Amino acid sequence: MNEQVIRVTLQDLQKPVADGLERVAHELRRIIAADFPIIADANDHLLRMKGKLFRPTLLLLSHRAAGGDDARIVTLASVVELIHLATLVHDDSVDHSALRRGMPTLNALFSHQVAVIMGDYLYSRAIIELVRVGDLEPLRVFARVTNEMTIGEMRQLEAHDKLAYGEAEYDLLIRAKTASLLSGACEVAALHGPSDVREALSRFGMLLGMAFQITDDLLDYTQSEAVTGKPSGLDLKEHKVTLPLIAALPRLSAAERQVVTQLMATPDPTDAQVAEVIQLAQSAGGLEYARRRALDLAQQAHSELAVLPPTPAREALHDCIAYAVERRS
Amino acid sequence: MNEQVIRVTLQDLQKPVADGLERVAHELRRIIAADFPIIADANDHLLRMKGKLFRPTLLLLSHRAAGGDDARIVTLASVVELIHLATLVHDDSVDHSALRRGMPTLNALFSHQVAVIMGDYLYSRAIIELVRVGDLEPLRVFARVTNEMTIGEMRQLEAHDKLAYGEAEYDLLIRAKTASLLSGACEVAALHGPSDVREALSRFGMLLGMAFQITDDLLDYTQSEAVTGKPSGLDLKEHKVTLPLIAALPRLSAAERQVVTQLMATPDPTDAQVAEVIQLAQSAGGLEYARRRALDLAQQAHSELAVLPPTPAREALHDCIAYAVERRS
Repeated sequence: MNEQVIRVTLQDLQKPVADGLERVAHELRRIIAADFPIIADANDHLLRMKGKLFRPTLLLLSHRAAGGDDARIVTLASVVELIHLATLVHDDSVDHSALRRGMPTLNALFSHQVAVIMGDYLYSRAIIELVRVGDLEPLRVFARVTNEMTIGEMRQLEAHDKLAYGEAEYDLLIRAKTASLLSGACEVAALHGPSDVREALSRFGMLLGMAFQITDDLLDYTQSEAVTGKPSGLDLKEHKVTLPLIAALPRLSAAERQVVTQLMATPDPTDAQVAEVIQLAQSAGGLEYARRRALDLAQQAHSELAVLPPTPAREALHDCIAYAVERRS
Repeated sequence: MNEQVIRVTLQDLQKPVADGLERVAHELRRIIAADFPIIADANDHLLRMKGKLFRPTLLLLSHRAAGGDDARIVTLASVVELIHLATLVHDDSVDHSALRRGMPTLNALFSHQVAVIMGDYLYSRAIIELVRVGDLEPLRVFARVTNEMTIGEMRQLEAHDKLAYGEAEYDLLIRAKTASLLSGACEVAALHGPSDVREALSRFGMLLGMAFQITDDLLDYTQSEAVTGKPSGLDLKEHKVTLPLIAALPRLSAAERQVVTQLMATPDPTDAQVAEVIQLAQSAGGLEYARRRALDLAQQAHSELAVLPPTPAREALHDCIAYAVERRS
């Protein structure tokens, strides 16, 4: 195995806020609790497919790094994970995805109907919880961000079958779809701090989120299902145009370009077709371009943290950047 | 034609708040405005299928009747319609409905994907607008109500193919699915008034909402597509068990009951099957029972308004009750 060594594990960077994250897991369970059988079953399933809590980690670390000491921060960290979860449930339903984190999605396990309703259930629970916190400011941030995410989802629908889809449009897509929530998580962590810190953390989250999504899109080109829990090459199978392909396209010969066009015109592309387009993107430098772009954004994210005093929490935020661009799943 | 004369038209009861309702239409347009093409197109379609604004009407009349004079009330009235709209968009998607108000649904005209995302878009815009109002109380009410509506939708999924579905479960369903939002609309109208008025209006909206939904379910048994804009007998075609059938079932003979069981076992029931079950429900007094139940709830709703001083706005609220149970579409 000639893979680059991963310098940072998630466990490492979560260490400074491990207590908070454990409370987040409990809070999540409390916030979404339901008597009604289908909802209780769906909740159990969602809690079993528990994610990495990357967004709550960012929020708690940002709060610590900004010198915050707000008792309500664990609830805000739980809400950001809940909003993420609600979004995943609707995304999987919109995409007809069958697997998420190596487990069946709600739409696969229950039905499409249950998935649509559960997404609404989870999101409205998040709002109820934010109202309980009793502060309009986090609500303002999360409402704006959630709306941006829906626009990102619409942009995602447009990013199909379109070889004319450019990097500028891709940037708008990943900002809205992914980076906005990470930005919101970091901003909410310092909402009542000095405005320069709040704004720097908001930009930090946006840059980190873009690097995170580009890395995600790269992993779809490079990683196997066993590692990511999702089939590999899925984006191409679904005719989704992402940065590795966008960057490769202008460097392809007419014949190579025709191979890509052919895949996009095939309703259900074969593994061989997908493998060939991945190979073309690789040879033309599309993967390398995307990797450099992610590292460049990571560097900019790093710079934003200079506004914070040097603390273990700030170090952990640096590690979050490394994790975002170096992870293998 | 031997139909009962409709005493109250929607235009009549909207007269005292006609100015406010015109502003609601403009506010709605402003709140959901979008640059992104698919969203702008979906918005245009939704605004063309403009509903009757029954919920904003209730909210504005309740505010007036409670002696309120809050400049923000038009925004709250717009938000209640927007939440209603978001719910309809997801409901139609969950039910795979093709028509709403005589026009194609978003899922039919665009796609299932666009419908799911648009529902989220509209709902998050509603939250943004409530945050702009700058008051946590309406947010608290609407977040609770929206969550109840999702539980109602889950109950709706359970109300299929189930001849054991009883009136108590039906009541829980219509309270959550329909009455909760009408109750929330009336409560929000008097949020900062005396608590007895606020609570009476909340109960008024709940009772009115239940009567409204029972009437809706009755219309599905009695009205033609030309009047309602939806195919008639649709609930039975979709195996939805509602009050006319629930009330009729215990009074059916074994042979008649078998006809109903047969319909529920048929994936795509014929018009003749639907017509026969409608006839059975009619003969067994199920429609009459549902009608009496709606009128009884209407009477209780009427009593709740006694807490308010006699004004033209209170009169119009009385008319809202009459409209809810006497309408033909």
